[in-house]
Amino acid sequence: MAKEFTTRAENYSQWYNDIVKYAQLAENSSVRGSMVIKPYGFAIWEKMQSVLDNMFKETGHENAYFPLFIPKSFFSKEADHVEGFAKECAVVTHYRLKNSEEGVVVDPDAKLEEELIVRPTSETIIWDTYKKWIQSYRDLPILVNQWANVVRWEMRTRLFLRTAEFLWQEGHTAHATKEEALVEAKQMLEVYAEFAEKWMAVPVIKGTKSPNERFAGALETYCIEALMQDGKALQAGTSHFLGQNFAKAFDVKFLSKENKQEYVWATSWGVSTRLIGALIMSHSDDKGLVLPPKLAPIQVVIVPIYRNAKELEAITEKAKQIMQNLRAKGISVKYDDRDTHKPGFKFAEYEYKGVPLRIAIGPRDLQNSSVELARRDLLSKETVPMQGIEDKVEQLLVEIQDSLYQKALQFRKDSSREVNTWEEFKIELEKGGFLYAHWDGTPETEQKIKEETKATIRAIPLDRKDEPGKCIYTGKPSAGRVIFAKAY
Amino acid sequence: MAKEFTTRAENYSQWYNDIVKYAQLAENSSVRGSMVIKPYGFAIWEKMQSVLDNMFKETGHENAYFPLFIPKSFFSKEADHVEGFAKECAVVTHYRLKNSEEGVVVDPDAKLEEELIVRPTSETIIWDTYKKWIQSYRDLPILVNQWANVVRWEMRTRLFLRTAEFLWQEGHTAHATKEEALVEAKQMLEVYAEFAEKWMAVPVIKGTKSPNERFAGALETYCIEALMQDGKALQAGTSHFLGQNFAKAFDVKFLSKENKQEYVWATSWGVSTRLIGALIMSHSDDKGLVLPPKLAPIQVVIVPIYRNAKELEAITEKAKQIMQNLRAKGISVKYDDRDTHKPGFKFAEYEYKGVPLRIAIGPRDLQNSSVELARRDLLSKETVPMQGIEDKVEQLLVEIQDSLYQKALQFRKDSSREVNTWEEFKIELEKGGFLYAHWDGTPETEQKIKEETKATIRAIPLDRKDEPGKCIYTGKPSAGRVIFAKAY
Repeated sequence: MAKEFTTRAENYSQWYNDIVKYAQLAENSSVRGSMVIKPYGFAIWEKMQSVLDNMFKETGHENAYFPLFIPKSFFSKEADHVEGFAKECAVVTHYRLKNSEEGVVVDPDAKLEEELIVRPTSETIIWDTYKKWIQSYRDLPILVNQWANVVRWEMRTRLFLRTAEFLWQEGHTAHATKEEALVEAKQMLEVYAEFAEKWMAVPVIKGTKSPNERFAGALETYCIEALMQDGKALQAGTSHFLGQNFAKAFDVKFLSKENKQEYVWATSWGVSTRLIGALIMSHSDDKGLVLPPKLAPIQVVIVPIYRNAKELEAITEKAKQIMQNLRAKGISVKYDDRDTHKPGFKFAEYEYKGVPLRIAIGPRDLQNSSVELARRDLLSKETVPMQGIEDKVEQLLVEIQDSLYQKALQFRKDSSREVNTWEEFKIELEKGGFLYAHWDGTPETEQKIKEETKATIRAIPLDRKDEPGKCIYTGKPSAGRVIFAKAY
Repeated sequence: MAKEFTTRAENYSQWYNDIVKYAQLAENSSVRGSMVIKPYGFAIWEKMQSVLDNMFKETGHENAYFPLFIPKSFFSKEADHVEGFAKECAVVTHYRLKNSEEGVVVDPDAKLEEELIVRPTSETIIWDTYKKWIQSYRDLPILVNQWANVVRWEMRTRLFLRTAEFLWQEGHTAHATKEEALVEAKQMLEVYAEFAEKWMAVPVIKGTKSPNERFAGALETYCIEALMQDGKALQAGTSHFLGQNFAKAFDVKFLSKENKQEYVWATSWGVSTRLIGALIMSHSDDKGLVLPPKLAPIQVVIVPIYRNAKELEAITEKAKQIMQNLRAKGISVKYDDRDTHKPGFKFAEYEYKGVPLRIAIGPRDLQNSSVELARRDLLSKETVPMQGIEDKVEQLLVEIQDSLYQKALQFRKDSSREVNTWEEFKIELEKGGFLYAHWDGTPETEQKIKEETKATIRAIPLDRKDEPGKCIYTGKPSAGRVIFAKAY
């Protein structure tokens, strides 16, 4: 179990897979493209859910639940949406199996009149429902979120980053005015950015997507974009201003205060278990997972070091006191007194599981009234007095959270630069990172750049400078720089 | 909106549907058999989830997530299981749609080699996974739970009680010994019973199922059984001792402490959104939903009664103080100062939504330093001093919780009786309730009784008396009475 991970330098992709495996986060299942999220990985997702759910509720949203299945015809109602989503999807065609000579087979008599699609996203079924909920301006806004599983039939899958089935939340709101819907879409972008930066310790660029990268059916897609350690970008969350597209597709009108029938304005926004992939790739090192304390299922582990039962007993007594004090501060702590494994094994295990702080207590520590305190992010350790250890731990958890963010921010700064010519662009792209470059604003140019280099426009930053220039590819005028990168 | 509900006496089934509709708990969707759980209904489910999840964690369980899809062949591996579950199910046969002249159609080139079943329950996919997790006794026990959606293609559906898709939790545990697995299955039955009685205020009978009613693949099914107001039984939760059936089906062995290869012992246990149906039918009355305070999304609502802005302002000031004090006690309170609706409308709304306590404050109350306090369960109201209202509310919520339980318990007592002859059985059955009767212990007799009367054995009570007798149907010897009833 004292595994040697593949290093990032050797093979970044294998390094990622090794971490997911050895930290026991997830694994592939017998169903193509579908993962099993193991308890330790799911505990991270539960922490994420809990924080996000509170943030949604504090901004006035309620949870609800809509059907897993969507009638095929619903997808045809919004023209862009069907192109984006209805193609690679799981299709339910029958509702019964039967015994036959070859074993259990699909019963041909149980064919559905209309096929059902396993939801890849729920705009259509939800707007079909909202039609029943909305008559007048008094019924608006509707501020609803759903935690759910969705399926997109991806051909190349990677644990957390791209799987056929994944878990996510999808907010779907309905508003009386365009302005209100825009405010909502931007508000949720801010919620996502705050979550990424304050909780995941992952710095993100807030921006809008270019038309090519926009959500199928949206008028504007707001996004947060993070940079991974291999210099590739990862879209961490999106919030869409859907205009009246879905209201028109599902004929959802309301009687306005001015007594007029108007179409409803919409937003949708989501983040998924993909965030766990972003978390892994932002902070981890060649020893395994590194977790920001605020999302770590175990924040502190205490490992006793002993030769006999009497020593263990004395250590356990002290450890229990420390645990009690830490828990009183709201810190999650685990005491690992398994006698089936040696301390060295345990140290390695918590290292690759990314537990932020490790306390080791041995007989000599008892004599000296000290403990050994090890910090996962720096792989450093020091001997500190047992007295006051709880305050020290509390302060260090804050420090680690901040330090991880600052480190990731510094990495992004070092990996971001302006490029001004096509030659420069191609050379710099190979080094990875965010390239700030001028673009003429056309989907055609974006498409050509993608075809030639695999780079896409990750975001048009919300805070970009007004800086006219010339498109790196066509030389045509550009209003400001956008961010190009290769992406997950 | 001041609706007249259908009364229970008029049409019990319609009464139930009216409550689900007017309390805004759920509605049918455009997808046959699939419901939309509306925010107020979902808030009840969230409360249930939160309490149960804590109980599971306190008994040592962790959450994880397994795939939605199960390969068809997995169902054939456990003979009883396939009979019970693989028949009426949603079958995914294709993974792509395409455009055609008739619109979007299923792409015949995208046919799956092996069909996928949308999980009706997850024993098979989970035991396929556990095979990878278990090598030695050191890997045991595995104590895992999953919150998930499942699909069973029911032909006759009813909101919450029986829907094609529903939400539930399913625990799946793996153990080294039979004894340990039995202890686990019984422990979870106790957890469910405690939840039903202490939180839902629904008294339950703890028992085992007869072979006919056992879970497909289980050696023993423990159940909690509740009695609804129409005299029909409702199975509220089950916990299964699965023996080594799934371990054998999926070849899951472990190396024991004695260095022998042995098959693993299993349990599974679940409760679902069906519990909301049980909650509704246990306590509600002809005015609408009645909720036990511990699961009510809103425990107290405050309604201001005013003629002008100045009065509202004065009332709001007092209401805010009360709300702050209530929230400090952990009581959830809503202030409804909507000016779009009259107090009478609001009173009716919270009545049919089952909010346990309503406080109304008018100008006269301000003068007298009093409030009007109304209790949903008794439909009673009284004027009480504003001073100390928070303590009064806190005490009343406890009282209501207990009172609902006692009332339901009394109803069950009044509806339970022993019957000793077949004639008596048939007559009493029509009156509803739990019939304690002797049965010869054979599936054949149980089946015949079911065919003739629609009554099934709901439970063989865990605490039944050792009381030999004669089967009401065959006259053959019986070791003790079992509970017969018609059931949901």
